[in-house]
Amino acid sequence: MKLPVGLNNLVEFLQRLPGVGPKSALRMAFYLLQTPDSFNDELARTVGDLRKNVFVCNECFSVSDEEICEICQDNGRNKQLMCVVERADDVLTIESLGEFRGIYHVLGGAINPLNHIGPEDLRMVELLNRVEKYEIKEVVVATNLSLEGEATALYIKSKLNKEVKVTRIGTGLPMGADLGYADMATLQRAMDGRREI
Amino acid sequence: MKLPVGLNNLVEFLQRLPGVGPKSALRMAFYLLQTPDSFNDELARTVGDLRKNVFVCNECFSVSDEEICEICQDNGRNKQLMCVVERADDVLTIESLGEFRGIYHVLGGAINPLNHIGPEDLRMVELLNRVEKYEIKEVVVATNLSLEGEATALYIKSKLNKEVKVTRIGTGLPMGADLGYADMATLQRAMDGRREI
Repeated sequence: MKLPVGLNNLVEFLQRLPGVGPKSALRMAFYLLQTPDSFNDELARTVGDLRKNVFVCNECFSVSDEEICEICQDNGRNKQLMCVVERADDVLTIESLGEFRGIYHVLGGAINPLNHIGPEDLRMVELLNRVEKYEIKEVVVATNLSLEGEATALYIKSKLNKEVKVTRIGTGLPMGADLGYADMATLQRAMDGRREI
Repeated sequence: MKLPVGLNNLVEFLQRLPGVGPKSALRMAFYLLQTPDSFNDELARTVGDLRKNVFVCNECFSVSDEEICEICQDNGRNKQLMCVVERADDVLTIESLGEFRGIYHVLGGAINPLNHIGPEDLRMVELLNRVEKYEIKEVVVATNLSLEGEATALYIKSKLNKEVKVTRIGTGLPMGADLGYADMATLQRAMDGRREI
């Protein structure tokens, strides 16, 4: 049985969203068939207007309601402590901790030679300019713990003035982990990163 | 950090889709922030127009491109064998087997007293009318194996003329199952439903 065209189109669009496979796309599409019309109209409008209503912060390149985001506008923040992340949603993740009181910089990805992403494809020049402009004392590199994230961290370290302290988020075993199931690379990092108790 | 309003609205809509939690909604929303504009516009249009382009079959209440669905229009189908399902996507599931050559009837749910869904809220009258009109010989009740689905099956059996054969899809252990992990109700059904080999 062929799906009706309108339904099939929707399933194909939904399937391209991250984490959505054919089965869940179908389930969502059938759900949307039986929601009140107003729901679908509102959803359509929200998706269509997304880019009009959401700005990218001119300073840190995070998402924002305005041209400069809340965090960059906040005078209570330590503007000499900067956390560098790959993507805008990483800012949210770190903010959800409620611990970090500095500012952010969203690179827009990580160096990835296999996918032809070099430093020039990231917001690296902007990073260096901001570090200089705000006389930043510490840059916390919170890129992912992948090969690409690590390479990006090393690249940032190499480009920054020696007076700027460059730190990397801690690596080691996650909380609740069982030593027996840890991979060697993580275990090595955990040993190297041991701290006095 | 508050999410920008446009993004937050989208996250709230996406979260209401089945199988989408706060984290995956956020991931999808951020994905939609960086897709080409045309993708979002097309997705918005497809969602908004869904109900305009997809019909409910006037006969079996499955989804269709036309007023009468492909299956109901198909003369190669056995019109005296009817499979009753709860939802339109169940038709797709059974069709994907490629085994069943009869017609369908979509009830639109199952009897569920706790949620105040009685037979009058389902397409039960339509079912009885169709069984009579097509002089159907066998009704295969393929509602879910839940309490509600079972009650619905019994209700259908009670309402149909004694000359109509009413069958229920087979119950028992799923393929690949381990006896040790089976629940008692399934095991009981598997014993009751044993067949000669």
